[in-house]
Amino acid sequence: MKAPELGIKIGVSEHGKKNSISDVKGVKVGHVTLIQGEGKLIPGKGPVRTGVTAIIPHNGNIYKEKLLANVFVMNGYAKPVGLVQVQELGTLETPIILTNTLSIGTAADALIDYMLEQNEDIGVSTGSVNPVVMECNDSYLNDIRGKHVKREHIFEAIENAKEDFEEGAVGAGTGMSAFEFKGGIGSSSRVVHIEGRKYTVGALVLSNFGKREDLTIAGVPVGLELKDWPGKGGEGKGSIIIVVATDAPLTSRQLYRIAKRGTLGLARTGGYAYNGSGDIVFAFSTAQRVKHYQKDPLSIKALPDSILSPLFKATAEAIEEAIINSLLQAKTMSGRDNHIRYALPKEELIKIMEKYGRLEKS
Amino acid sequence: MKAPELGIKIGVSEHGKKNSISDVKGVKVGHVTLIQGEGKLIPGKGPVRTGVTAIIPHNGNIYKEKLLANVFVMNGYAKPVGLVQVQELGTLETPIILTNTLSIGTAADALIDYMLEQNEDIGVSTGSVNPVVMECNDSYLNDIRGKHVKREHIFEAIENAKEDFEEGAVGAGTGMSAFEFKGGIGSSSRVVHIEGRKYTVGALVLSNFGKREDLTIAGVPVGLELKDWPGKGGEGKGSIIIVVATDAPLTSRQLYRIAKRGTLGLARTGGYAYNGSGDIVFAFSTAQRVKHYQKDPLSIKALPDSILSPLFKATAEAIEEAIINSLLQAKTMSGRDNHIRYALPKEELIKIMEKYGRLEKS
Amino acid sequence: MKAPELGIKIGVSEHGKKNSISDVKGVKVGHVTLIQGEGKLIPGKGPVRTGVTAIIPHNGNIYKEKLLANVFVMNGYAKPVGLVQVQELGTLETPIILTNTLSIGTAADALIDYMLEQNEDIGVSTGSVNPVVMECNDSYLNDIRGKHVKREHIFEAIENAKEDFEEGAVGAGTGMSAFEFKGGIGSSSRVVHIEGRKYTVGALVLSNFGKREDLTIAGVPVGLELKDWPGKGGEGKGSIIIVVATDAPLTSRQLYRIAKRGTLGLARTGGYAYNGSGDIVFAFSTAQRVKHYQKDPLSIKALPDSILSPLFKATAEAIEEAIINSLLQAKTMSGRDNHIRYALPKEELIKIMEKYGRLEKS
Amino acid sequence: MKAPELGIKIGVSEHGKKNSISDVKGVKVGHVTLIQGEGKLIPGKGPVRTGVTAIIPHNGNIYKEKLLANVFVMNGYAKPVGLVQVQELGTLETPIILTNTLSIGTAADALIDYMLEQNEDIGVSTGSVNPVVMECNDSYLNDIRGKHVKREHIFEAIENAKEDFEEGAVGAGTGMSAFEFKGGIGSSSRVVHIEGRKYTVGALVLSNFGKREDLTIAGVPVGLELKDWPGKGGEGKGSIIIVVATDAPLTSRQLYRIAKRGTLGLARTGGYAYNGSGDIVFAFSTAQRVKHYQKDPLSIKALPDSILSPLFKATAEAIEEAIINSLLQAKTMSGRDNHIRYALPKEELIKIMEKYGRLEKS
Repeated sequence: MKAPELGIKIGVSEHGKKNSISDVKGVKVGHVTLIQGEGKLIPGKGPVRTGVTAIIPHNGNIYKEKLLANVFVMNGYAKPVGLVQVQELGTLETPIILTNTLSIGTAADALIDYMLEQNEDIGVSTGSVNPVVMECNDSYLNDIRGKHVKREHIFEAIENAKEDFEEGAVGAGTGMSAFEFKGGIGSSSRVVHIEGRKYTVGALVLSNFGKREDLTIAGVPVGLELKDWPGKGGEGKGSIIIVVATDAPLTSRQLYRIAKRGTLGLARTGGYAYNGSGDIVFAFSTAQRVKHYQKDPLSIKALPDSILSPLFKATAEAIEEAIINSLLQAKTMSGRDNHIRYALPKEELIKIMEKYGRLEKS
Repeated sequence: MKAPELGIKIGVSEHGKKNSISDVKGVKVGHVTLIQGEGKLIPGKGPVRTGVTAIIPHNGNIYKEKLLANVFVMNGYAKPVGLVQVQELGTLETPIILTNTLSIGTAADALIDYMLEQNEDIGVSTGSVNPVVMECNDSYLNDIRGKHVKREHIFEAIENAKEDFEEGAVGAGTGMSAFEFKGGIGSSSRVVHIEGRKYTVGALVLSNFGKREDLTIAGVPVGLELKDWPGKGGEGKGSIIIVVATDAPLTSRQLYRIAKRGTLGLARTGGYAYNGSGDIVFAFSTAQRVKHYQKDPLSIKALPDSILSPLFKATAEAIEEAIINSLLQAKTMSGRDNHIRYALPKEELIKIMEKYGRLEKS
Repeated sequence: MKAPELGIKIGVSEHGKKNSISDVKGVKVGHVTLIQGEGKLIPGKGPVRTGVTAIIPHNGNIYKEKLLANVFVMNGYAKPVGLVQVQELGTLETPIILTNTLSIGTAADALIDYMLEQNEDIGVSTGSVNPVVMECNDSYLNDIRGKHVKREHIFEAIENAKEDFEEGAVGAGTGMSAFEFKGGIGSSSRVVHIEGRKYTVGALVLSNFGKREDLTIAGVPVGLELKDWPGKGGEGKGSIIIVVATDAPLTSRQLYRIAKRGTLGLARTGGYAYNGSGDIVFAFSTAQRVKHYQKDPLSIKALPDSILSPLFKATAEAIEEAIINSLLQAKTMSGRDNHIRYALPKEELIKIMEKYGRLEKS
Repeated sequence: MKAPELGIKIGVSEHGKKNSISDVKGVKVGHVTLIQGEGKLIPGKGPVRTGVTAIIPHNGNIYKEKLLANVFVMNGYAKPVGLVQVQELGTLETPIILTNTLSIGTAADALIDYMLEQNEDIGVSTGSVNPVVMECNDSYLNDIRGKHVKREHIFEAIENAKEDFEEGAVGAGTGMSAFEFKGGIGSSSRVVHIEGRKYTVGALVLSNFGKREDLTIAGVPVGLELKDWPGKGGEGKGSIIIVVATDAPLTSRQLYRIAKRGTLGLARTGGYAYNGSGDIVFAFSTAQRVKHYQKDPLSIKALPDSILSPLFKATAEAIEEAIINSLLQAKTMSGRDNHIRYALPKEELIKIMEKYGRLEKS
């Protein structure tokens, strides 16, 4: 269940139909979840609590028909691949892969292979390809040194992609923690009406950040209320990767503005971009495609900046809810050294929300 | 009264003694408040609702002994002066002047004059000077086209500077609006203990942003609760200038990290960095001074990044509260075209906070 | 005489008709030159060797019909006004004013006044305005503390603007020095053919940088050859402002790429972006206008990035030549404390170019 | 032979003893060169003309004792790994690996493995590691789709590292082209004296950029003179990676300034940062080390910015010469589809330099 189903209302804008990043037409998400072993960490062996999540931005050949994109790095204690070229050229030309920090090399390499398979011209009659990979550190539950993500898992995640995808402790989210609870994958969307036109903005997060006491849900200090709930510890090696998709026509400059607003949603959940938390917001628009072999002048559709404010707020709200949804949907998981990340306790949560007058009557 | 006096607790960290930016030793603030005329706007004539606020970063000659500093531009729909050099060299060498948007030229010019008076070598035997001026647009209440801020007001604001300064609708805050209530100058501070040492971080804001319905105080949706309170309108030409001072020893790179976290505090009050809102966070450290005529290698004290997280959170909290304090201390003001910006109604506020379980018993 | 007339060929691309920034249709330049007094510096009194240069980007109302623009700061030891908003929104909405460093306040203030006169809605029914002012420090020849540029000079420079404008020691260039010779205003242009279409790129520089020995003209170490020519001294307080105009349709992201390439032309003249040299490249495109009151989606024309390389080279070449042209056209001037900046000696220059095999036969 | 041995003088500053990046004490460089097969490209099979170059920044454990560092991206058409964290934290914590574009995944993965082997705490009791990998596209000569660089080659390159290393068509430079001649690895250094202290700056480049006609050596238009020399073609998929090392004590902010100046040296060789050329300058200082487990305040030594200009110029000169040295030391190589990249012809070069009066008598 996502926040609205529990009676928790994040923000004021309308949701998309699925309340998911896949409300933006063409966007699909695939997971590979790797769980194996229990108990004491044997570095390089296990236990395994990790995975891969792939975000497919459109149904066509992404290299041949790129999307406008941009990225904002809120805190660069992070090891992303591919951002430099996105910032320079303003385009995304591959699926986006999320995984654990030490698997970025494997993931980038496999994503390159995937792109080579799809495009025989790369490295032969045209240039190379810019793989986009982002990560969080799941070592609280996972034997991250084991680098259990393999080349085939990247391919599998891409091939698994669908509109109706799971959230919570799945894919890249398998071993992630948020606010010292179980975190992982969460998604949400918002619909806005601007000058008589309707636009959708969707967010997907890989949540792996935050101190328990900072957790804030719809303004309520849930983390303080649950400060004695079991399972604390291991904070400070976190991060959050946020991916925003929209069908609003925006330039890459405007998508940078959108990405920046993502951090405002993050803040409202209790995110403080602590030193060790690599916080990145990546935004793309599906409204138009830029052809790889384009030679003629482009005609780029873009909303005027003066009417973007509703989209800024919708972005922040979708992200705020996506983070909360990642917590609501992740189930308790034990892992390395018998560390346990508890699911956010729903009954207590509902009581707390009620206590603070923030539970919607259904 | 600031938030704590009303029983409103913003965040969890301890306040400094005065709960003010001047808890950072050496920092002083001076205002000039300009109020004249009533009624219909006669462009160039009035009514006048504007002013100047000067922040003095230390007691000595700031040009000869610069402070490490940096700035984060959250939304650059803004007309600041002096930021480019601060970003390049990482130093602040003048008082910081805040005023209305169309008076930046006057303010920069007067600040240059002030610095020339203090330093006979500028432009003769050494280089020039980099005046730092930031602004918000107070045209909802003020005849901004009249540019009623004059050269002498800049000097006066600097000379007025003291540790115990007024907040609310004073100085540069005179004509400002926040969340369609009366905004202006607000301040707050936090004290953190890191590895056995104690550091203070203080914030001062010039608040002039936000839509009524977005106002959030300690997580409570105050703006939605007060959406029918009179005085709405005129949103969207706002901005917020945030100045952060700390006595923690930090490099300019680290002060950029601090400044970035400022936006997290902003977000928690309901800031969405709307298109027209120029949102800037300027941060400086008083821990050490860089001499203008230095030729020998410097020895720059700096906390390791790995222990900065408490300072990041304290910064966000001080800013969150400073914004709320700007609202709590600003009195109702009418101005141009009989526009009225009401003070945030305290009685209602207290009731709302109580309703949502967020009023501290005293 | 510009470089080609002397038989000096900078680069390989074709010039525009006037070899000037005004080869880009609609661009005009106006100067006000202030020269008064001789001899010993009496700070605040004289001698006066300064001025103002205004660049008018198009013939219409620039505020109501903005141009796409961006800026690259190579070295931020500089006091520009207006860049933050250009970077955020990607548009230019005023003439560009160049003057001396300590006059930026006056210039910004007067430019605001000019814009208010042209646009009655500013500050009344619409937002404020973002004045763009850039500067160099002319204190080697000029009593810069005297701030001899007045409000009316800004208006005059704007009104003086024309396609056929003077170069050298005029306008903002009056008191400027380059490579310890007389510098100032220089301009040049290039024409490129891309995919069957013809585009013009024009550059105007305010040159005030460089050490004598670094001066390089068409690859020839002219500065080393002239190292004993009289008039050395006073280096290190310089700067260069570079303005690039083009009629090629480019987004603001692409104009940032263009601006960055400007530094490559600078480098080829012997520019090393020394610590005290504020080196800024500002680029705008006249190919399309963004309406202030636009509410409908825009359709932005833009060349694909893959075909921009010829434009990058043309930009670098136009700037390289514009810098050399600023030297070639500036006449010897004495000023403050009887400092003399000699014109680059043409006869010797020609001999040197010949010696190094770089003089074109006419 | 490097430029000085041929009588070609690049710039005016003094060289270091070896005229190499390894003049900066502690810096070592290792190569693995992969050459196999001839003739027609069989994608995935060969011919192989590629390799790996590793730069070891100091002799100790780099993760436990990091160096201050920063990076400037001149043109982000590039796929580097690790830059985001360097920009945020200002430190380098691994060797720097250079290789071909499609091998960045393999290289990052192997470098992670190498770091895990050296540091048992990574991912167990401390955080993760930020591998720095940069690349150019060698597909003109190399079967880049074959990804012939394997995990063991990264380890080998690191282990091969020494002070006296080869330059030219070796290591990552094996298949690279510059100005349509054979390019690859080049190095040079400069020594500067500032306020009575002596500092060394060294550069290493991986050159793979440029159009023939743009090649400029010591100001001489060598490329135009050699425009009919055989072997042209295939330009436009290039890039250049520049690594700068210095023993001058500098903060990461100042190393950004150093890195930026690198592009000025690049420009003087005929670099125009064409669209497809990923041009990156990475700079680090060996003057001090930042401990991984540091908890106490640091004391960072740094030269005042006001005395950095000689270092800026020395950096540009070292890079300019390093690029030329990469050309001078690379031998003719044939590869994919019988493409041939000729070595820059020395006899002709000497004649050309003489013609333009730029050959130093020995």
